[in-house]
Amino acid sequence: MEILKGAVAAAKIKEEIDHEMGRLNGYTPRLAIVRVGEKPDDISYERNAIKKMEKLGLLADSYTFPADISDGEFKEQFQKINQDENIDGILLLRPLPKQIREKDIERMIDPGKDLDGISPENIAKVFAGEEDGFAPCTAEAVIEILKAGNISLEGKRMTIVGRSMVVGRPLAMLALKENATVTICHTRTKDLEGTCRNAQILAAAAGKARMLNGSFVGDGAVVIDVGINVDEDGNLCGDVDFASIQDKAAAATPVPGGVGGVTTSVLAKHLVRAALARK
Amino acid sequence: MEILKGAVAAAKIKEEIDHEMGRLNGYTPRLAIVRVGEKPDDISYERNAIKKMEKLGLLADSYTFPADISDGEFKEQFQKINQDENIDGILLLRPLPKQIREKDIERMIDPGKDLDGISPENIAKVFAGEEDGFAPCTAEAVIEILKAGNISLEGKRMTIVGRSMVVGRPLAMLALKENATVTICHTRTKDLEGTCRNAQILAAAAGKARMLNGSFVGDGAVVIDVGINVDEDGNLCGDVDFASIQDKAAAATPVPGGVGGVTTSVLAKHLVRAALARK
Repeated sequence: MEILKGAVAAAKIKEEIDHEMGRLNGYTPRLAIVRVGEKPDDISYERNAIKKMEKLGLLADSYTFPADISDGEFKEQFQKINQDENIDGILLLRPLPKQIREKDIERMIDPGKDLDGISPENIAKVFAGEEDGFAPCTAEAVIEILKAGNISLEGKRMTIVGRSMVVGRPLAMLALKENATVTICHTRTKDLEGTCRNAQILAAAAGKARMLNGSFVGDGAVVIDVGINVDEDGNLCGDVDFASIQDKAAAATPVPGGVGGVTTSVLAKHLVRAALARK
Repeated sequence: MEILKGAVAAAKIKEEIDHEMGRLNGYTPRLAIVRVGEKPDDISYERNAIKKMEKLGLLADSYTFPADISDGEFKEQFQKINQDENIDGILLLRPLPKQIREKDIERMIDPGKDLDGISPENIAKVFAGEEDGFAPCTAEAVIEILKAGNISLEGKRMTIVGRSMVVGRPLAMLALKENATVTICHTRTKDLEGTCRNAQILAAAAGKARMLNGSFVGDGAVVIDVGINVDEDGNLCGDVDFASIQDKAAAATPVPGGVGGVTTSVLAKHLVRAALARK
């Protein structure tokens, strides 16, 4: 089984970014990461994103707010960031605390700065298969990994486990754009095993540790594991039981070392694209 | 094979509308149908829509413009309709002539009046499976026919042939909301026959006369035919070769007499909902 390392896709995206940066005439794009509260997942993602931006020669600033900030106060602060001429792109760490109406923020964010595709404008573009919107970075990272591995989606049966707005649904639309025949599974799917086994490309985005084992994987399938979970021993693991698929799959992404790192690369790519569009 | 007549779903929707009308305290919702040019398909749809509104005690006005109206002039006129306090909902007949930037109109239309779900706001809501948006009427008509026939989508394998923004994609999202396991096929799908035959519910929205025959239909499947085509003899027909599926399907919609008439019923339902939301 070939191991599809995220690093390969990340290196390819870096090349693209270096090329695009040449068109910015020395201007350095600036990312604003907006975080409310101190959730460890948010802090970890923020740290990784900042590290990636630095590595790629991009700027990133954190804007952090207390977990108990009021809806009105947060909106006021968010609008300032949104309208700041020096900021090219925004990453809002979600979910937000309950007192903040997240839906309002989705409608408020400038679609041109909305790097993770949370605004209705970008969602509609992804749904329609249009080129110029921003898709959620994790969904796009799956496509990038397949492309970096020279795995074509054209005419392939692709099954996606999970129907979230962050991965499952947008990934289905991105895969459709690549002409895959897409099946979307979820918790209510009957015969999940058979449906997954029928796939030539299987994307796991269910958020449940090692829920898919070898019997869910067809011979020679490509398996992309989007899950990032912590198992009972405190170890990081994916939605796929990696060891059990070795003799079935033709290729698979590991966790860690797979989709996760590519997500921040896509974020960087989106940032450069946003900066280019603004210039 | 049971024939799923559109009239059954239409009657059920009429009941719902009559009930909702009671909450409007005598106010009669008003629809604006906007047509540019004299395409026979548009005129026929417009006539059917007006007839349906009249039958349901709703008001409908046509706003027609010459096929060669300029982009600027049309936008000005459209904005007037859009902002008219006496208009509760708008149906824009599409596609528009090429000189008009349709994308701009999609962004311009008041999402609260956008009965056929063409605005980014409504598209994003349908994509996310939210309740309060307007889905494209034809896609929703498919769900209404299944409901009227007491055919549950829960956990069922549903295959949709076609990936348009008017039917295929939104129907996939509406079916997902009903917990179907959804597969989207299209012109690039390999083994379309096998993929369709595997479905418990098959929706044909490819726009190609009688392209799906009995060998595309699994035993006991339910077949919903969204296609409205004219065959070589000038007769109206669907995407499904109706005669050939009689011994395979458990139930199917005819063309004409199936989805088509339900589409305008859904339009009427949306109009009443829009009026209620505005009051």
